[in-house]
Amino acid sequence: MPPEQITQKDIAEALGLSKQAVSLALRGSLKVSEATREKVNAKAKALGYQPDPSLSALVKLRTGSGKVPTRWNQVALVHNWPTESGLQESWFYREWLKNLQDAASARGIAVKEYWLGAGGEHTASVLRKLRACGITGLFIAPPPQIQAPKKIEIPTKQFQVVTFGPEHMYSELHTIQFDYYENLRLAWATLSQRGHQRIGLVSATYQSLRTGHAWRAAYHIEKLQSGCEPGQRMPLELDSETGQTSCNAYLKWVQANDCDAVISSVYDVEDWNRKLKSPPEVAIFNVRKPEQQGIDINMEQMAETAIELLLFEMQRSQLAHTKHPYRIHIPGKWVERE
Amino acid sequence: MPPEQITQKDIAEALGLSKQAVSLALRGSLKVSEATREKVNAKAKALGYQPDPSLSALVKLRTGSGKVPTRWNQVALVHNWPTESGLQESWFYREWLKNLQDAASARGIAVKEYWLGAGGEHTASVLRKLRACGITGLFIAPPPQIQAPKKIEIPTKQFQVVTFGPEHMYSELHTIQFDYYENLRLAWATLSQRGHQRIGLVSATYQSLRTGHAWRAAYHIEKLQSGCEPGQRMPLELDSETGQTSCNAYLKWVQANDCDAVISSVYDVEDWNRKLKSPPEVAIFNVRKPEQQGIDINMEQMAETAIELLLFEMQRSQLAHTKHPYRIHIPGKWVERE
Repeated sequence: MPPEQITQKDIAEALGLSKQAVSLALRGSLKVSEATREKVNAKAKALGYQPDPSLSALVKLRTGSGKVPTRWNQVALVHNWPTESGLQESWFYREWLKNLQDAASARGIAVKEYWLGAGGEHTASVLRKLRACGITGLFIAPPPQIQAPKKIEIPTKQFQVVTFGPEHMYSELHTIQFDYYENLRLAWATLSQRGHQRIGLVSATYQSLRTGHAWRAAYHIEKLQSGCEPGQRMPLELDSETGQTSCNAYLKWVQANDCDAVISSVYDVEDWNRKLKSPPEVAIFNVRKPEQQGIDINMEQMAETAIELLLFEMQRSQLAHTKHPYRIHIPGKWVERE
Repeated sequence: MPPEQITQKDIAEALGLSKQAVSLALRGSLKVSEATREKVNAKAKALGYQPDPSLSALVKLRTGSGKVPTRWNQVALVHNWPTESGLQESWFYREWLKNLQDAASARGIAVKEYWLGAGGEHTASVLRKLRACGITGLFIAPPPQIQAPKKIEIPTKQFQVVTFGPEHMYSELHTIQFDYYENLRLAWATLSQRGHQRIGLVSATYQSLRTGHAWRAAYHIEKLQSGCEPGQRMPLELDSETGQTSCNAYLKWVQANDCDAVISSVYDVEDWNRKLKSPPEVAIFNVRKPEQQGIDINMEQMAETAIELLLFEMQRSQLAHTKHPYRIHIPGKWVERE
């Protein structure tokens, strides 16, 4: 270091604080008051202090965590679905949770599910319990498929949290979401390259909250870009993913629009297509069986990204919180039927 | 640890490898061959090995970096714009780079700009030079505003890289982008809450590559959700952001559509509106002056996220590379005119 370099000691002396307090304040630690942090940062700026980034990893290790030692081999998944077993009763979220648990387990970590009550009424007691046994890493499960899901409030000074959207619901926390917009565009591009000219979209109404309408938005723009009139081939939104009414609505729609290909988040379209003489080619969100083709939303990458981000936050939290939450989008892949 | 726990030593003995080689292989280090990594991982799985995550931070510190010591106080911004000064000649990217440099400087790091030649023809020699002085952290600048920008190829075994999109161009690397889709929706929601019923959108053609058409996609879906006919109030795309032709096209469009509000990425609409008796209310992407209102795309958060992610990768790279790239979207904020 050049001799004229300003050190933390200089700042401490200028303010009459301990060197440790200055060090904590500069790292944004919650162990010193906000007033002190502001005072220290202002002085650091005034003196032209420049941090030495190579020291930060070392400091991180030396700093202790808190009163209850952090438990590194377990994290919690909390949810406020209408029933305790609700999340596990949905095949989608069962698979979703399994991916999360597998990715965590490969890193020596267990993910345990905790129900906070349908209205989140047990939140405080569950969090106390987790805290008491040193669990500080939390996943907040996606909300249930109901009209007005209730936000789960977590004190982020005590826990590190990763959520799975919808983004607008947990905008102050890290959020990992499937890349709805780009996934739709990928399905469109693939079908389009195969020569299809009348591509349709089928989705279910309840999915719009989850996706921020991104599927339909991407569909509309691709349709317009392909030279189609704005009002042509409007997408079909079904209230239910199954049943005779939905089947009839689908058959009527697909014939009226003369679709040669269909992008669908509703699995039953493949069954329904059997009633057609020349069924459209189908791209499914999210492909589950070898005889399906479409988009693999990449649950494995979602899960690995989630656990790595949470672990990273747990390590970093011993010092300070991440300044800005990440909004991470997980890209899907096209998969061909086998 | 329970006594039956499988250790790295067990794996080493089973394969006749050193414990260090096993340790490196399990962490995905590039210091051991891919064949060894695969062999070790297969054996670890077979034996039921479970890593101890609390050790990883410690191990990270003890591991040396490589032959040339990593330089922690400098990272490079590389670009292949048509001219060396091109990036700095655009006010938008000048401001963008300033934000990046400020965020880095607050962490004791300098961001230096390197031109790779318009076709990237100097890439190899520039990278050799960076490598020789220990610079391993790289930002890849957004591509120039030309029809078919050329991708910059970086050997990721030697460098840690953060890019700024477009996402499809650097899908294998970390990408930080403004949240085009949600930013448009935020502008729409704000104008809509103010009672506007005929909101229009103005953008420039060249921005579509950068944004993946997300502005127009979000605009169309919001329009449809508000009950508007699909073909009504189609957005205006201008070839140029300035000039009499663009002004005339805008005035014709805004009157024909009887817009009571306009969301615009083109700054000149505010001037053009002076020619109208009752100009529409305007929401600008990206607000720059106190007398403007609209979306602040949040360059500061973009910059801080970028430098923190790059620093994190530089620290982590001493061990292994991130398994999956992050696609991070930076949320904007609505700002009111002063």
